[in-house]
Amino acid sequence: MSALEPFSAVEIIAAKRDKAVLTNPQIDWVIDAYTRGAVADEQMSALLMAILLNGMNSQEISRWTNAMINSGEKMNWSMLDRPTVDKHSTGGVGDKITLPLAPLVAACGAAVPQLSGRGLGHTGGTLDKLEAIAGWQASLSNEKMLQVLQECGAVICAAGAGLAPADKKLYALRDVTATVEAIPLIASSIMSKKIAEGTSALVLDVKTGSGAFMSDPLKARELAQTMVGLGKDAGVKTLALVTAMDVPLGLTAGNALEVRESLEVLAGGGPADVVELTIIFAREMLELVGIKGKDPERALKDGSAMDVWRKMISAQGGNPDAPLPVAKEKLTISADASGTVLSMDAMSVGVAAWRLGAGRSRQGESVQSGAGIEIHKKPGEKIVAGEPLYTLHTDTPERFARAQEVLEGSVAIGSTDVKRLPLIVERIN
Amino acid sequence: MSALEPFSAVEIIAAKRDKAVLTNPQIDWVIDAYTRGAVADEQMSALLMAILLNGMNSQEISRWTNAMINSGEKMNWSMLDRPTVDKHSTGGVGDKITLPLAPLVAACGAAVPQLSGRGLGHTGGTLDKLEAIAGWQASLSNEKMLQVLQECGAVICAAGAGLAPADKKLYALRDVTATVEAIPLIASSIMSKKIAEGTSALVLDVKTGSGAFMSDPLKARELAQTMVGLGKDAGVKTLALVTAMDVPLGLTAGNALEVRESLEVLAGGGPADVVELTIIFAREMLELVGIKGKDPERALKDGSAMDVWRKMISAQGGNPDAPLPVAKEKLTISADASGTVLSMDAMSVGVAAWRLGAGRSRQGESVQSGAGIEIHKKPGEKIVAGEPLYTLHTDTPERFARAQEVLEGSVAIGSTDVKRLPLIVERIN
Repeated sequence: MSALEPFSAVEIIAAKRDKAVLTNPQIDWVIDAYTRGAVADEQMSALLMAILLNGMNSQEISRWTNAMINSGEKMNWSMLDRPTVDKHSTGGVGDKITLPLAPLVAACGAAVPQLSGRGLGHTGGTLDKLEAIAGWQASLSNEKMLQVLQECGAVICAAGAGLAPADKKLYALRDVTATVEAIPLIASSIMSKKIAEGTSALVLDVKTGSGAFMSDPLKARELAQTMVGLGKDAGVKTLALVTAMDVPLGLTAGNALEVRESLEVLAGGGPADVVELTIIFAREMLELVGIKGKDPERALKDGSAMDVWRKMISAQGGNPDAPLPVAKEKLTISADASGTVLSMDAMSVGVAAWRLGAGRSRQGESVQSGAGIEIHKKPGEKIVAGEPLYTLHTDTPERFARAQEVLEGSVAIGSTDVKRLPLIVERIN
Repeated sequence: MSALEPFSAVEIIAAKRDKAVLTNPQIDWVIDAYTRGAVADEQMSALLMAILLNGMNSQEISRWTNAMINSGEKMNWSMLDRPTVDKHSTGGVGDKITLPLAPLVAACGAAVPQLSGRGLGHTGGTLDKLEAIAGWQASLSNEKMLQVLQECGAVICAAGAGLAPADKKLYALRDVTATVEAIPLIASSIMSKKIAEGTSALVLDVKTGSGAFMSDPLKARELAQTMVGLGKDAGVKTLALVTAMDVPLGLTAGNALEVRESLEVLAGGGPADVVELTIIFAREMLELVGIKGKDPERALKDGSAMDVWRKMISAQGGNPDAPLPVAKEKLTISADASGTVLSMDAMSVGVAAWRLGAGRSRQGESVQSGAGIEIHKKPGEKIVAGEPLYTLHTDTPERFARAQEVLEGSVAIGSTDVKRLPLIVERIN
């Protein structure tokens, strides 16, 4: 540590280790010093573990988030003639909601400047899904992002390197030091990017249930409340819905498969749960920015949301008419009993899709566009033994066995009641 | 992490984070993998913080200690015709006991293979003290160490690089990540070196009170019990005394000053508390290895301990007759009131000696041999306003002001009872 530094990393780590509340100048310094390399990785990881185990209060989390925002640029959309509103999901199996939602909300008059991420583990990433479309580009300059937003009303792209660089460095460190699972760190990571993105309003989709990162509903609520507080502190109109992720969303998990399902929704069809959630989120987003008298349900039926989708995909180099990639091999798994599908474990389906090649184990790995799972029957539906339950897709058939292994026991078929979470578990604002 | 590794560092960190008990193979692997660089510093520091906050049970601490021993060589003294016994102190202000004790115990018939350390912060280190003697060498080869031990019955030297290398790497990491203060980590660090050193018996001096690392007596007891357990598990006859460090030990703190005081003890004189503690430890050490009928008090009076000292110093290149270094500047601080000295804060005296140049702030810094503090009156003694209380010694007189600052208020003078800890607080075996 240079003698010119106003704080010592060891003293700040010791303070949090001993359950003290970190001061604003301590937080500002430690984030800035870590970003420029004056606090070492081994010091930050000790601090992160102390934060994970001893917590941070709301004032500390707010300041930590701000310090991460201040480590980079902050985007600004005040030149637009529409209010900006965005949506973020904590990630779930088959969660393709962003794909129909962004053009739908734009079709209803708001601007959606959506910075998205890639998948890791059993949940997919919006950018991986869109990259299944021939020619589509995830990385845009700030100028290009503004241009797409002005022309189409919505843009979905990767966050640039200049946005919250402290979060990028911290995220990579947390990944290798078992410090991902801390609500203050998750909340500040998500919200620093969303606030720096410059949206005026934000609706959060916090998933809960077996396939969610926060499977415990109480933890999901705590995360939702923390993020809503951070958004409001930063002057962003923020609302959170805690939603069900005990069962996969829709009938597909996998990149091109989910794009296809999203197109069905944009064409006025698609699975009921995906349509319902898309419309609920669209209504919340429009209400948050004061847009009245627009009916998202109609915008799906009349093709206006699809028009925005086609424009947006084209503006980012994609061909909306190109056929979607199809996996080289398929394998159908049939029901081994007759009755009602009582449950379907989201985590098992997510892990199976990942094993088929739809997901990655490490940042930077490539994914198969065509890989994934089609679901033929969902909880509540009748099935007869021998009827298809899942179709597995992959380019590398040696993966089938490991996917089947994890799907073993993923559904219960019987005649008792179907027990599952309500689609919307809780609304937090 | 290579695919060839049997464990993942992230999974081991997550296990301890979630309060699981680490398995033997996990502990063996993580220590070995860290030593060879397959577990990164930022991963180990997160694990250390999780251990500090969530603890380890006695089985885990024992295995952790063993893994550190197995990271390097283990010394063996079975060729000697005397039993080996060593002593370790957790460090205190004015704690020069090792200097008279090692030759004294050797004079009574045991062999003392003492691997010592250097000081850090407000407590001194045995090697720094002995280096005040012209020509004396701290670093010996294993062959030379054996030779000194055979010829003199005692040797005091630095641990070689081959001894518990995992501990060396961990200690440096703990220092910069605020993970020093964890009983499992302190106990395993000390005991891995003492067990690898190959002594057959060990008496631990665990200091408590304001000037000790473990100022809380309950924590000191816990550390003592943990270390005694580790020693016994490894087949080393181990005993601990928890001793007072509320007041400095003896009348000096500083390298050459403490050597001078130790020589007084070896010459049959010296301050009562240093003599008493030296004799108590000598008796415990001799009893532990079954040496009967030897009187350590007599060995101080009859010059036999001094003879061993002179031989041992000479054997390591030192000149026992060389005049000890004297600091260039002195400053006397006088009492500002009359009465009885009621208390004298060990930490303040230790920090003052450190600020005068006797100690170091970072590993590798040099120290001043002549710097330190002489104490003219101890708690229980009468003093008259204006009489000398301390004499400060340094080669760099600009340090006087900062030493005086910390000594301000370090003594209480009055007419009420003297309150201090008993010299021996507790005996644990």
